[in-house]
Amino acid sequence: MKLTAHAFKVSISEPTAAITRDDSLVMGVGPNDHIRISLNGSVVSSVIITDELVKKGEIYLPTLIMEKCGAYEGDVVDVEYCPLPESIRSIRKKIHGGKLNKEEIGSVINDIMDGVLSEREILAFVSAFNVHNADLTEIAYLTRAMAATGKTVDLGVRPVFDFHSLGGVPGNKVTPIVVSIVASQGLPIPKLSSRAISSACGTSDFVDTFCDVEMDSESLKNAVRTAGGVFACGNEDYAPVGNIIIKAERPMGIDPRPVMIASIMSKKIALGTTHLLMDLPMGEGAKIPDMEAAEDFAGDMISLGTILGVHVECAVSDAGKPIGRAIGPILEARECIEVLEGRGDPSVAAKACAMAGIILEMAGENDGESKAREILSSGKALKKFREIVKAQNGDPAIEPSDLIPGEFVKEVHARFDGYVQYLDNRSIVAVAKAAGAPSDTGAGIMLDHKAGDLVKKGDVLFRIFAENQSKLDRAIESARSRRPMKVDPEPVSIPERGPITARFPSKEMLDLIRFRS
Amino acid sequence: MKLTAHAFKVSISEPTAAITRDDSLVMGVGPNDHIRISLNGSVVSSVIITDELVKKGEIYLPTLIMEKCGAYEGDVVDVEYCPLPESIRSIRKKIHGGKLNKEEIGSVINDIMDGVLSEREILAFVSAFNVHNADLTEIAYLTRAMAATGKTVDLGVRPVFDFHSLGGVPGNKVTPIVVSIVASQGLPIPKLSSRAISSACGTSDFVDTFCDVEMDSESLKNAVRTAGGVFACGNEDYAPVGNIIIKAERPMGIDPRPVMIASIMSKKIALGTTHLLMDLPMGEGAKIPDMEAAEDFAGDMISLGTILGVHVECAVSDAGKPIGRAIGPILEARECIEVLEGRGDPSVAAKACAMAGIILEMAGENDGESKAREILSSGKALKKFREIVKAQNGDPAIEPSDLIPGEFVKEVHARFDGYVQYLDNRSIVAVAKAAGAPSDTGAGIMLDHKAGDLVKKGDVLFRIFAENQSKLDRAIESARSRRPMKVDPEPVSIPERGPITARFPSKEMLDLIRFRS
Repeated sequence: MKLTAHAFKVSISEPTAAITRDDSLVMGVGPNDHIRISLNGSVVSSVIITDELVKKGEIYLPTLIMEKCGAYEGDVVDVEYCPLPESIRSIRKKIHGGKLNKEEIGSVINDIMDGVLSEREILAFVSAFNVHNADLTEIAYLTRAMAATGKTVDLGVRPVFDFHSLGGVPGNKVTPIVVSIVASQGLPIPKLSSRAISSACGTSDFVDTFCDVEMDSESLKNAVRTAGGVFACGNEDYAPVGNIIIKAERPMGIDPRPVMIASIMSKKIALGTTHLLMDLPMGEGAKIPDMEAAEDFAGDMISLGTILGVHVECAVSDAGKPIGRAIGPILEARECIEVLEGRGDPSVAAKACAMAGIILEMAGENDGESKAREILSSGKALKKFREIVKAQNGDPAIEPSDLIPGEFVKEVHARFDGYVQYLDNRSIVAVAKAAGAPSDTGAGIMLDHKAGDLVKKGDVLFRIFAENQSKLDRAIESARSRRPMKVDPEPVSIPERGPITARFPSKEMLDLIRFRS
Repeated sequence: MKLTAHAFKVSISEPTAAITRDDSLVMGVGPNDHIRISLNGSVVSSVIITDELVKKGEIYLPTLIMEKCGAYEGDVVDVEYCPLPESIRSIRKKIHGGKLNKEEIGSVINDIMDGVLSEREILAFVSAFNVHNADLTEIAYLTRAMAATGKTVDLGVRPVFDFHSLGGVPGNKVTPIVVSIVASQGLPIPKLSSRAISSACGTSDFVDTFCDVEMDSESLKNAVRTAGGVFACGNEDYAPVGNIIIKAERPMGIDPRPVMIASIMSKKIALGTTHLLMDLPMGEGAKIPDMEAAEDFAGDMISLGTILGVHVECAVSDAGKPIGRAIGPILEARECIEVLEGRGDPSVAAKACAMAGIILEMAGENDGESKAREILSSGKALKKFREIVKAQNGDPAIEPSDLIPGEFVKEVHARFDGYVQYLDNRSIVAVAKAAGAPSDTGAGIMLDHKAGDLVKKGDVLFRIFAENQSKLDRAIESARSRRPMKVDPEPVSIPERGPITARFPSKEMLDLIRFRS
């Protein structure tokens, strides 16, 4: 029926239209039904029926849908009941325990992409598509369908390397270092990172402080051609449906493995990745809580790679303690460049070289880690870093001292002699966010001491940086209640171990694979 | 914060409050958050933020929530952000493939019952709790938790028998006959049926035409004491959480097995059932499409019964053709009593005696079906039926001729000589509903012929009954487009088979079980 469109200025969990009871009865539409709005066939998946705001003959539509339809305030649009989309049958089949084929999975992903499925329907799909109810073939179909929702780039080179961290470790600034080491050997590595979702600083947040991170596919290709690698920001160009799914998952805080690995891999497929190293930070509260979970995850990821023609290796790292000493965009950028210059906290170089080393081994190196160390200490990595910064429109001569954190600083001191206990990662992140990170790029935390250190009363334990006094106060308040760093008279035993605690496949297994191929 | 409550006269998929943007920022509440409304702590699980309808300092609340809170139009209520309930953690764990314990499942069910979880959250739980991701222990916990949301009745007798059909077969009027046969042998059978959800007539819909079906637990106990059984209507007294879950499932048309069997069994547990016979109508489009599904369902149901101390047997029946010839409340009531009087379509008596026979065997009879036939033909079942009708405040002398269907009748004739093809159950139901069934009790269909019959041009194939001309016209229109009965010159081969095509456990297995016990 013809209805006059008005903009519905509301925030509600999903695209929702409001119509009167009378009009709903004529169309035969109820609150859980989908309706189709012509000018161009946009579908709205949720309906409010009310006579309070809306008059007969009117429809209130979210601004986004108005734009999608090309409708303006007061335009007459054609509205009709839209039968449950075919993809709902596929979701239902999955909820009932059935196996989905390529077309069924494709229809679900396309309808998510087109906004035909509501968030509740996406959530039901993701919930049903869980580890016990989705097999690798289905996950592979899902991956390809997700990749097909965006651009695919042919970089014109083979092999293509990539590095992906599951995240969750504060201060994990190793990506530009890994990329620089790998690219310095002539191995293409077009690494796309993300901004922080719940953390205090994502890789793109700190890289953004010294060069561009938003790159279209053309500039990405050029940068890989000239510099051999990038550390840019993943955007809506590649497998964009993943972001819609994440939005539906977020309110319940879920991220089940089959959809997670399909989502990760779909972006790699879009970029033509042939060799992928996954960093799996393991620890309490992380996505990978223990070695069993790591083994399960690695097993699925490696098998999915095999199906899709991507050689995948996984390295288990320690999610328990921050990498380096800096948390927050400018502070992390500074520490990252210091490490490239041969200074900075040794934990950053150690993790970067261990990870880069594995990638070098994928490319045929025997002792990748030693090679990576050599590349870093020789200055070759720094040189490559500056080339990539230039390719991303940054100043190739950037120095740590050019990066100035917020000028409002609070030093937190030890109140008695003792040993620094294990740091509470969540609290460190919470304090850094209270100080304004990541949107205030100068905000964050510097850890002057780390777990196990012996400190004297009055020593500076850590410093909070902020861009203004009120956020500094907010962060101090947060630090007071959360106590992210505690000192205790008892010494803490810190196990001596490398940055990587396990690899999948094992080195022995890899030797076999290499022998075979 | 204190807000003035107004009634929000909208139909929307779940309890939703509307507040202004300003107030939402002060409370820190977004569209997917839960809020808690005091006077009595009701939780609203969905929020709309808009400045169009609502003024600062106001909150619009669904009428139901107003009632729950005891708030009236213009009352000031206290509204606060409500952190994600603990049960969300359990749902998240299930989505991530974990196993839930008794307390975790209990918290989910209690929060569903209390309205704390939104429909999207319930849907996510049900979708994750699927056949591949829920084991019998979890289903047993779910069953007990569901049963605990309502009353439990101790009828003061043991054993307690029950009969439950998965439904989906038009004209399935056997329940009062089964109950009468079983109760006539002194075996207590407090059978609670339901009204139609998507069908043209549920058992309670036709029983309601000759006696009361709504019984509180006190009158239920009395009726079982005096008459030995009832054929009443299941209501909100027993495991009421099941209805909330069904409401969340309905828009997507899902009914996954683990939640379905827990829901069925929870009502049995509430009534103290010790012996349960499940009727599983099998056929295309039914909940049980094939023998593999029947075996899976029966296996789970029997094992769940074992854990919960209920002896379960399952009988697979034919979902392909209507039982008897009448569809619609009064028409079905009439046919049901005719069969009890030894007349009527033989398919009704056949199914009723086969089902009742299995229950008699549970109680020790050797050849239950023959015994059931004998009870029916001797008039003992009819006598018991009249006792139960009396206990349910009906006229014990009720005769089929007292039940008068709608006076607006359309006879549909064969247009040429030939054989009646397989009937289309869905279309028969659609036509009966178009005629007004089940709410117009006199509406429905009488099948003068069934599949396989040889008919001559002009013979009456079926008759549509309605209570007024406009609904009759609507039904005729529906019959014209759907053609629920087709005649073809080719004969149809109707396989000769009894009303029950398989039993679980098999009779041999049962003999072993009985020998053991």
